[in-house]
Amino acid sequence: MKPKVYVTRKFHFSASHRVYNPMWSDEENKIIFGKCSNPGGHGHNYELEVTVAGSPDTHTGYVIDIGKLKEMIEKEVIEQLDHRNLNTDVPFLQGRIPSSENLIVALWDHIACLLPPEVELVRLRLWETPRNCFEYYGEKL
Amino acid sequence: MKPKVYVTRKFHFSASHRVYNPMWSDEENKIIFGKCSNPGGHGHNYELEVTVAGSPDTHTGYVIDIGKLKEMIEKEVIEQLDHRNLNTDVPFLQGRIPSSENLIVALWDHIACLLPPEVELVRLRLWETPRNCFEYYGEKL
Amino acid sequence: MKPKVYVTRKFHFSASHRVYNPMWSDEENKIIFGKCSNPGGHGHNYELEVTVAGSPDTHTGYVIDIGKLKEMIEKEVIEQLDHRNLNTDVPFLQGRIPSSENLIVALWDHIACLLPPEVELVRLRLWETPRNCFEYYGEKL
Amino acid sequence: MKPKVYVTRKFHFSASHRVYNPMWSDEENKIIFGKCSNPGGHGHNYELEVTVAGSPDTHTGYVIDIGKLKEMIEKEVIEQLDHRNLNTDVPFLQGRIPSSENLIVALWDHIACLLPPEVELVRLRLWETPRNCFEYYGEKL
Amino acid sequence: MKPKVYVTRKFHFSASHRVYNPMWSDEENKIIFGKCSNPGGHGHNYELEVTVAGSPDTHTGYVIDIGKLKEMIEKEVIEQLDHRNLNTDVPFLQGRIPSSENLIVALWDHIACLLPPEVELVRLRLWETPRNCFEYYGEKL
Amino acid sequence: MKPKVYVTRKFHFSASHRVYNPMWSDEENKIIFGKCSNPGGHGHNYELEVTVAGSPDTHTGYVIDIGKLKEMIEKEVIEQLDHRNLNTDVPFLQGRIPSSENLIVALWDHIACLLPPEVELVRLRLWETPRNCFEYYGEKL
Repeated sequence: MKPKVYVTRKFHFSASHRVYNPMWSDEENKIIFGKCSNPGGHGHNYELEVTVAGSPDTHTGYVIDIGKLKEMIEKEVIEQLDHRNLNTDVPFLQGRIPSSENLIVALWDHIACLLPPEVELVRLRLWETPRNCFEYYGEKL
Repeated sequence: MKPKVYVTRKFHFSASHRVYNPMWSDEENKIIFGKCSNPGGHGHNYELEVTVAGSPDTHTGYVIDIGKLKEMIEKEVIEQLDHRNLNTDVPFLQGRIPSSENLIVALWDHIACLLPPEVELVRLRLWETPRNCFEYYGEKL
Repeated sequence: MKPKVYVTRKFHFSASHRVYNPMWSDEENKIIFGKCSNPGGHGHNYELEVTVAGSPDTHTGYVIDIGKLKEMIEKEVIEQLDHRNLNTDVPFLQGRIPSSENLIVALWDHIACLLPPEVELVRLRLWETPRNCFEYYGEKL
Repeated sequence: MKPKVYVTRKFHFSASHRVYNPMWSDEENKIIFGKCSNPGGHGHNYELEVTVAGSPDTHTGYVIDIGKLKEMIEKEVIEQLDHRNLNTDVPFLQGRIPSSENLIVALWDHIACLLPPEVELVRLRLWETPRNCFEYYGEKL
Repeated sequence: MKPKVYVTRKFHFSASHRVYNPMWSDEENKIIFGKCSNPGGHGHNYELEVTVAGSPDTHTGYVIDIGKLKEMIEKEVIEQLDHRNLNTDVPFLQGRIPSSENLIVALWDHIACLLPPEVELVRLRLWETPRNCFEYYGEKL
Repeated sequence: MKPKVYVTRKFHFSASHRVYNPMWSDEENKIIFGKCSNPGGHGHNYELEVTVAGSPDTHTGYVIDIGKLKEMIEKEVIEQLDHRNLNTDVPFLQGRIPSSENLIVALWDHIACLLPPEVELVRLRLWETPRNCFEYYGEKL
């Protein structure tokens, strides 16, 4: 039996979004979403924490090469989000309201596919502001 | 089946307390609690993280309107703690030693009652200083 | 002679912007501004630090009532920036490229007018991301 | 000519205070100071930054041994403030309203006397909360 | 039944290490570990969070006296790591590659032995940089 | 006359060093430098803030393209420091004790030469730990 260690890398991206339901009028959106549905949109510096779990390799002492994890997520995920408009520019968000809840669930499938077999994705944590945070563990209700 | 997402909002309040057992003498309190039982009291900038879990609503993309969560907790909880003396000024701490452990357990019941039915309270995290942190998940031993 | 003390209050707002020169084509803008000129825009969580200087009042011990400073700046400044599009929604930025440099200079005049006579505005500091910061002291070159 | 380098050490202490003028009634204090004059008091985790300037010594490369600076300030200053009531427990604040403005000015004289001759005290910075900051450079108006 | 509360204390230490497998040549190490195997080594400011769980004592309101936990861990653990070379200076790391994964697993056994019976060790969290984090819960795979 | 705006970019690197004077014995070094002269060395996560000043360009709204500043400093400065041993691996520190004071003075000349003519270097700030900070403004005593 080998120890199970959790490894987290934190990423940063800046993006804009408008939280609104396109089926509703601007007025209805304002009642439900308040200033978050302002038609010009607004934006955030998002912090994304990706956590994987596995056992340290006997020869390297690593669960995963965190430098390679960093490069892969930056190229395949952050590049698609950084300095983008989440309503219009991100293929895997098309047709979804870009709330942080929907974003984190969409990111789960996107990231899980990228990982090497020796680790499993166990947690995503997304800070929308320094005071608002969203977590997803792949659980269903 | 729908994804279960965890939503956290961070709050801030400044309060004073004296950690001591009123059944004991000042000397006995000093032996057990050290400088924390200094009769004049001391204080902290507390950070409180409230985490709820639920599924994103199909029409809004939200688990909960985090703006409304913020307003409710600020009005019903933070108002009672901010710029207060935890030994004398807080109704739901009456008769308890205001350690962070007792505070977080008292906050659980207080906050759980306030939440709408579509979410459940899953974690409270209380930072007493940037180096001391307390968590409660509603578990019993 | 009385001591001169500097008092700083930190504010937070989330906004979107597109950095581009409307006199240029999208291609020219891309050459000069790179991803910052992406037509859909992007956004940030800005932190704004407002610093004023003065002498502590003999009767209150305050240079300024920081609670009142907070309320005034939030109402007169942050309300106009938070959850807005800096290209289209902010009256005092009309006709300017919404770079952080131009934003901080525009904010100086706006804030200086609001302050009571017993203090002077001495520094604005604007964090665009946790790694990019802009300061203005009202100096001219 | 030798380079002038600024060296800063950050300290932490937790204290309680009540901001009020003892010449006034509780009601008058409440009008002027609001919740900060709540009779039970409140408290903060203060961060104090002490900055000295001097030239790096040829033999050590140090402006000052920051480990010794730390020990001296902790023993002579922080010990008197940590887990104390600023209204009643701190000798050098006797008779002053314990606002952060008055505290930082009192600390200046206290700290300046402690420093070795090869450095000069150039700045004190006191964070009362993560959003409220006070600075003093020894200047008079 | 009594509430189960989690108490965390954060520690800091500065250390150097070189991540390499002594069975391999410098070139092989460079291929696998990149700049982390630079022969001169490099270093980090590590943050270590120790989390224990238990029930608040009826007489003190404490799960554990966090001041005593702090002193014990600083004396028995941090003293052995702070301002050390993790490859050569730390007895409990002898013969292991000093990756953060191996360090956190070695720390688990070391810390678990030190704790009083009324609490159990439930989580170690080690920040190697502000962006790289490692967690261990004592789990085996 | 045009406004003078200060632009800061924050960089990160991890390095090891041993603070000692090679003219002295290990014992003499231990008396002067304490644990900082431990022969195996130790290390830090350094944060370096580079501040330049200038006027916003009329056509771009920028004092400097902060993205290009970032790339230049990362390539010419951070590459030489990150994951290095400051005693042995950094050409511009050869023959100097790698204290943070000496490092920041050496960095000044190195960085000043790299900057385009439209800005001037006005401040370097180096965090050695979250509690120890060094600043240099190019001043001489």
